[in-house]
Amino acid sequence: MSVAGYISNTLFIQINNAMLKDLVLKNRSYRRFNQSKSIEKGTLLEFIDLARNTPSGRNLQTLKYFISADPSTNSKIFPTLSWAGYLKDWDGPVEGERPTGYIVIMEDTLMGKNLVHDQGIVAQTILLAAVERGLGGCMIYSVKRKELSEILKLPAHLEIVLVLALGVPVEKVVIDPIAADGDIKYWRDEAKVHHVPKRSLKDIVINY
Amino acid sequence: MSVAGYISNTLFIQINNAMLKDLVLKNRSYRRFNQSKSIEKGTLLEFIDLARNTPSGRNLQTLKYFISADPSTNSKIFPTLSWAGYLKDWDGPVEGERPTGYIVIMEDTLMGKNLVHDQGIVAQTILLAAVERGLGGCMIYSVKRKELSEILKLPAHLEIVLVLALGVPVEKVVIDPIAADGDIKYWRDEAKVHHVPKRSLKDIVINY
Repeated sequence: MSVAGYISNTLFIQINNAMLKDLVLKNRSYRRFNQSKSIEKGTLLEFIDLARNTPSGRNLQTLKYFISADPSTNSKIFPTLSWAGYLKDWDGPVEGERPTGYIVIMEDTLMGKNLVHDQGIVAQTILLAAVERGLGGCMIYSVKRKELSEILKLPAHLEIVLVLALGVPVEKVVIDPIAADGDIKYWRDEAKVHHVPKRSLKDIVINY
Repeated sequence: MSVAGYISNTLFIQINNAMLKDLVLKNRSYRRFNQSKSIEKGTLLEFIDLARNTPSGRNLQTLKYFISADPSTNSKIFPTLSWAGYLKDWDGPVEGERPTGYIVIMEDTLMGKNLVHDQGIVAQTILLAAVERGLGGCMIYSVKRKELSEILKLPAHLEIVLVLALGVPVEKVVIDPIAADGDIKYWRDEAKVHHVPKRSLKDIVINY
């Protein structure tokens, strides 16, 4: 979609330019979704079109993508993923709250071993784009890679690096300051609100 | 340039919600800057405040930051960086076109070895925030780490992972399709325009 294209749709007065802050704060790791709200395959392609225009170490661009937005493929991908390691009594989203789209990010090892930064760069860019569209998701590293490779019939030179699970979020996620004990583990309260402790600016900037 | 600064000047009518696309496309790797335009230290802190609210593998949040916005510290950091590996006849920005701010991203190894994705996540988030402010920059991996650690007097448990060089860009960077020979090396034309070949969507989505 071109800039000119979108100008014709909505007239929207922007009063401040810190749109990105809004997206970054809304972009929580969502793990429960409204499974009745499907995602268009074209939407996933638009996200990847953004990702391909991000910085790449030595511009090698070794990452490849598999997209899934149909219930049948989604249901095959889901069992290969592990969810929220710190929530020991939760096995992941139940039927009805599962992701409605996936983007499997792979590294094409025939293109040379890239630096690792590309993975986080594209994953974050795609999730910010998802949030902008009223979607949300989660970067999942804990993946049964061999199993998923077989399901997707991936050639050996494509190595799975991350899976992005996407959908319309139905959970509330809040950021908390870190408590005195320094514990960084996220947790879920009785109202099922997901809490994520984040370090303060003073704790992370060494010359604050 | 502050946000408040230009908001008061211009009424800016935004017409759709695909602001992120605009930022992603404007966020090129800029390596030449207007060195007479300084960056506020507070601006760098705002960028890191965004970065600390991004997803982190197992929420470990092992990254730490050193910020520099003063000419004296900047001039010490600059010689530890290598610029644009593919431009063999260019040694980096000349005096007058050098970065006016740096964010050195480090990993705190006392906090456990985190997954690598955090680095790209925060680097991309910071650069998008910079672009939103009329700034721009470059993620630099090719760093004389030992030398820079000594200059910044870093304790041994803080390992430098990336340096973000920032400023008001003065160069034009364009994205090109990849030519038939598949070469991904960026290059600079006679008008000093920097060209970056990017793979097409069809080339990277295996089930397009």
